[in-house]
Amino acid sequence: MGAYRIAVLPGDGIGKEVTRGAIEVLQAIATRFNHQFEFQYGLIGGEAIDQKGTPLPAETLDMCRQSDAVLLGAVGGPKWDGNPPHLRPEKGLLAIRKEMNLFANLRPVKFYASLADSSPLKADIIQDVDFVIVRELTGGLYFGKPSGRRVENGEETVVDTLLYKREEMTRIITVAFELASKRKKKVTSVDKANVLESSRMWREIAEEVAKEFPDVELEHMLVDNAAMQLIRNPKQFDVIVTENMFGDILSDEASMLTGSLGMLPSASLSTTGPSLYEPIHGSAPDIAGQNKANPIATILSSAMMLRLSFGLHEEANAIERAVQQVLTSGYRTADVAKKGQRVVSTKEMVDEIKAAI
Amino acid sequence: MGAYRIAVLPGDGIGKEVTRGAIEVLQAIATRFNHQFEFQYGLIGGEAIDQKGTPLPAETLDMCRQSDAVLLGAVGGPKWDGNPPHLRPEKGLLAIRKEMNLFANLRPVKFYASLADSSPLKADIIQDVDFVIVRELTGGLYFGKPSGRRVENGEETVVDTLLYKREEMTRIITVAFELASKRKKKVTSVDKANVLESSRMWREIAEEVAKEFPDVELEHMLVDNAAMQLIRNPKQFDVIVTENMFGDILSDEASMLTGSLGMLPSASLSTTGPSLYEPIHGSAPDIAGQNKANPIATILSSAMMLRLSFGLHEEANAIERAVQQVLTSGYRTADVAKKGQRVVSTKEMVDEIKAAI
Ligand SMILES: CC(C)[C@H](C(=O)O)[C@@H](O)C(=O)O
Ligand SMILES: CC(C)[C@H](C(=O)O)[C@@H](O)C(=O)O
Repeated sequence: MGAYRIAVLPGDGIGKEVTRGAIEVLQAIATRFNHQFEFQYGLIGGEAIDQKGTPLPAETLDMCRQSDAVLLGAVGGPKWDGNPPHLRPEKGLLAIRKEMNLFANLRPVKFYASLADSSPLKADIIQDVDFVIVRELTGGLYFGKPSGRRVENGEETVVDTLLYKREEMTRIITVAFELASKRKKKVTSVDKANVLESSRMWREIAEEVAKEFPDVELEHMLVDNAAMQLIRNPKQFDVIVTENMFGDILSDEASMLTGSLGMLPSASLSTTGPSLYEPIHGSAPDIAGQNKANPIATILSSAMMLRLSFGLHEEANAIERAVQQVLTSGYRTADVAKKGQRVVSTKEMVDEIKAAI
Repeated sequence: MGAYRIAVLPGDGIGKEVTRGAIEVLQAIATRFNHQFEFQYGLIGGEAIDQKGTPLPAETLDMCRQSDAVLLGAVGGPKWDGNPPHLRPEKGLLAIRKEMNLFANLRPVKFYASLADSSPLKADIIQDVDFVIVRELTGGLYFGKPSGRRVENGEETVVDTLLYKREEMTRIITVAFELASKRKKKVTSVDKANVLESSRMWREIAEEVAKEFPDVELEHMLVDNAAMQLIRNPKQFDVIVTENMFGDILSDEASMLTGSLGMLPSASLSTTGPSLYEPIHGSAPDIAGQNKANPIATILSSAMMLRLSFGLHEEANAIERAVQQVLTSGYRTADVAKKGQRVVSTKEMVDEIKAAI
């Protein structure tokens, strides 16, 4: 048995409901496996702007730094859409990633037989899909300077900067190889080496890192081709590794394979402090507070937390099995329900998963 | 009747076969509609590197500039993959875009009922899909400086620069609105305004341009969401406009909707000189010279040429109808053939289309 301190940042919109669901599931795990989880709550995003005047208050960051892991809901909503850039909810997310050095974003994409109907893709394309996108999360266009407008020869001009240090590329590519060596032993490194200098360096480093993992196959793929291959033949992938912006686009594209954003968890790992876990979906303001949201992505994120931050493999498996079982029994939240299926609320779904643990 | 000078750049791999097919079809059009097309040939890409030591020889560029329009096949192949950046076939493509100011890349994505089986997406998702991606082609990360490596505080660092001038954004967004005003009157402007300064300026300019087109609806969409929506519900789109790199990724993703890259044409328009037309597929070295390639993308590109560069609408329609008819009759090249269908060669496909004109 162990004691773990979990910082919970519910955020905005459905963030509250889905984190509440995950906490209940974690409590069920604590009971069954005799652990102690202590939950501490902090503000981030729109609510933090409203209450503290900043999307990432210092006390939130302090609390997260002193935790063993962070569970995040979602941020954002129409209320703050007109705000200036530094007072936007997303800035809280970008800031916590950078401040906590959460450089490795893992997004598993896994086929659920029971949800095949919800996918826009044909069943034979998505059957048995099982890969992980490893996205660099604290570099590239998201953080490079200069970023802004200037007047050049009387013309208004704007720049953003795609910047990486060698070490930043090396560490994320290494994470991908380590992961692949425990899986199907294949890394697809995605870049745009026929155009970008940064991609040529990326490719070089991928080759170097690959030498340390002789049992893992390395394949290079151009980002435009990757955007096609994800739909054409997603079964070919095991671990995909790519820089921040490419990863943002490809992982959202990939999320469609399973039919619902509401199913997909993510982990944002640091090697210098606690890691963060969050669903990949957003705050869905249109259904917030209605007990309709799909809590599974957040619940599966908490399973990733157990496995990756606490090394509690059996416990993580127990959550994943429970989710699988409840889906197989036919329970669906509205986002993934097909005609004739039993639609349950957020709360009912959480209760079913708890019962299955 | 009119006389038109067409510069033909077959390029590498299947580029030769598919441009030859398109030329035969154009000749059939010339005969039927009593026009005169004069074809002049130039080197680009790998072959130009082999014969002239550069992927875009000056004489090729001169010839293109003096033409009424340019028809390009494809460039690239494994032979040149190890070359240094400035001696890569793709550099020829990037250089001709920049030199001829081909800033507006139009990529129509259209559903063919007869090909629905070849798509990885479910039939109800892609039925009646009909949109155009307008991609900025001469700015952004592809051409911004600085681009390269440097050592900063003893650490190797690399940058690429996403740079745009106001005027470059204005003109491409204007092209999109003009196009939409002749179509379903909706522009989806894709950006990453929650992160990038360049996207915030893009969004501002989109709003400004929209004021001049009161009958066209403007919608903003984040690029990660766009990557999802293209698969989830592609029918929602009419005209999508976006910057160079986002356009590269999204248009290749979108190409999967129709089931084959071999079907999709493109136009790269300039307002200061001749425009260029090319299939969106690559040089497919694996099937080059085998009389197997699908010539339809290039043939449809030549139809775009007739319509957009020469104003020959009836003639363009004649090509498009002929393609439609031949597909409906069941003819298929190998890339789009399903079990039990009649597979024809490049040459046979071209002959059928000519016969249908
Ligand atoms: C909200 C936004 C800044 C964020 C990103 O682009 O990283 C989101 O899309 C994500 O993928 O987590
Ligand atoms: C070959 C490559 C440089 C090119 C691009 O990225 O623009 C291609 O992918 C395209 O889309 O025409």
